[in-house]
Amino acid sequence: MDNKITKAHGSGGIFSHNLIKEVFLKYFDNPILNQLRDAALLNQINGKLCFATDSHVIRPLFFPGGDIGKLAVAGTVNDLAVCGAKPLYLSCGFIIEEGFPISDLEKIVASMQKTAQDAGVNIVTGDTKVVEKGNADGIYINTAGVGKIPDNISLAENTITPGDRIIISGTIGDHEAAIICAREEFKITGNISSDCNIVNSLTEKLVKNVPGLRIMRDPTRGGLATILNEFADKQNFGLRIYEDKIPIKNSVRGLCEPMGFDPLYMANEGKIVIIVSNNDADKALAIMKDHKIGKDAKIIGEVIEEPKSRVLLKTQIGSDRILDMLTGEMLPRIC
Amino acid sequence: MDNKITKAHGSGGIFSHNLIKEVFLKYFDNPILNQLRDAALLNQINGKLCFATDSHVIRPLFFPGGDIGKLAVAGTVNDLAVCGAKPLYLSCGFIIEEGFPISDLEKIVASMQKTAQDAGVNIVTGDTKVVEKGNADGIYINTAGVGKIPDNISLAENTITPGDRIIISGTIGDHEAAIICAREEFKITGNISSDCNIVNSLTEKLVKNVPGLRIMRDPTRGGLATILNEFADKQNFGLRIYEDKIPIKNSVRGLCEPMGFDPLYMANEGKIVIIVSNNDADKALAIMKDHKIGKDAKIIGEVIEEPKSRVLLKTQIGSDRILDMLTGEMLPRIC
Repeated sequence: MDNKITKAHGSGGIFSHNLIKEVFLKYFDNPILNQLRDAALLNQINGKLCFATDSHVIRPLFFPGGDIGKLAVAGTVNDLAVCGAKPLYLSCGFIIEEGFPISDLEKIVASMQKTAQDAGVNIVTGDTKVVEKGNADGIYINTAGVGKIPDNISLAENTITPGDRIIISGTIGDHEAAIICAREEFKITGNISSDCNIVNSLTEKLVKNVPGLRIMRDPTRGGLATILNEFADKQNFGLRIYEDKIPIKNSVRGLCEPMGFDPLYMANEGKIVIIVSNNDADKALAIMKDHKIGKDAKIIGEVIEEPKSRVLLKTQIGSDRILDMLTGEMLPRIC
Repeated sequence: MDNKITKAHGSGGIFSHNLIKEVFLKYFDNPILNQLRDAALLNQINGKLCFATDSHVIRPLFFPGGDIGKLAVAGTVNDLAVCGAKPLYLSCGFIIEEGFPISDLEKIVASMQKTAQDAGVNIVTGDTKVVEKGNADGIYINTAGVGKIPDNISLAENTITPGDRIIISGTIGDHEAAIICAREEFKITGNISSDCNIVNSLTEKLVKNVPGLRIMRDPTRGGLATILNEFADKQNFGLRIYEDKIPIKNSVRGLCEPMGFDPLYMANEGKIVIIVSNNDADKALAIMKDHKIGKDAKIIGEVIEEPKSRVLLKTQIGSDRILDMLTGEMLPRIC
């Protein structure tokens, strides 16, 4: 096989078949994918399913803490996980620029498979398109995923009650800060690693053991502040978080302050924020702290009666500031 | 809202939310999508599921007979349909170039919704990424889909038996011929329309009424010749088709001959090719001819004992020619 992707790899003909066999099947190998049908035939399922998708256009493709492959699997796995589901199956759609090194594709595919294996999911169906040089930036990856929601689990905003606690599973802003450092245009040398990771083993523990769990989300694009606003939007409660309780790495804070980035709006790729009953808050926190991706978990705030539908930040000097959704844009192509 | 896509539409913040509300929800409106969760919560399912994905990078975005939106929905609906499934739910992932007109996005989204409605599926979850100008060619769309396979249906190569018949649901090459005409670089004016269409109402009729149905496929990239090779690959039978029985529009033939394109290798986007027992062949043909997308259906060949794993073309002058898979590339960006 040539060492670069050519248009023929996207033709549907013999080059496409060879790419599938020599790269995709080599890593993704599983009985469902190996049938190579137009659609994957899944095993019998009885119950409620969850279905999610994410496209990934991150730049650079390889960054401290991860790469586009790890991110593409984690992104969809995490979307399923925070809905309370056990992720089961993933699809993947590659859009590759002509001339892309096949060795880089293999690195990405290997990383996808490792992440999928860690998450306990199989990549069962896929598609590859090749576009002419200049019409994509190396590679874009879409994943979609199917997961099963345990019986009697229903996480939703309308179960949230004043007095409930807000918990974040760790430090915020790490992913976006790592990408800023990795982008050549900023000419910054930093030692910040993305938190890019799957969260489903943690969410599955919470779903199983915390009856007072109201809702979970992964604060990706738009960051913690945007997700909290999504929780509160049009609801009959407000949310308050405390600036001095929010875990932020010194390295991230040191990067953001001079550049004017606000970690509250920066993307995370391996964190969850949950709302849980006051009674179960300590239990949920203990489960997080006991998990390798939740060691820095903190209770950062609570659900309040007023102002309804709003998110407040109690600042370190004690004043309440309204936190809106992200209004402009931060950095493009962070995921 | 501005009239062009900006980076902020991909930020995950307020612009993203507005785009979702003002464009996507306006058309895709359904109770599952409207919840706007990270993952769609599907209704209870019991049974065997099918899961498929396709990315679409077609150029131009609007062409006679369709557009990237219709194609993106039909592509995944058809992959599910030919596996015998009833398509139920779709996801969609948009990768949009900064500066793309929102009016064009709306046209595409409206076309997706119309096609989804015709197919009886809902678009229940999605994702939008924006890349900087020059890093995509307008818009790329990925769809993934979930469908349910009726009990006791198992379409597979290993049920195919010598004596079975091969049927194509209509004329071949229409889609790729239409795209050739629509591409400015060829400077051709032709009056050829793509066959871009959903096939699931036809496949569902066949699945229900033709017990001798062995296998179905949609001959997209690589064309009829490549799909027949996929059927025969490593199998204990061969396939023979007859050149003079293959339906090809005169306009397509007239375009291909001078340019050296072979309709047998050209993409179709609303056709199916099936293999069916000899006993049920006339019944399957009648069902096709009775359907609006199958009026030109023809029995084009049969399953033979020898040569095993091979596809033969009986030419109009009576000789047998081996038909291989597509080896090079035809036109890039046809789907």
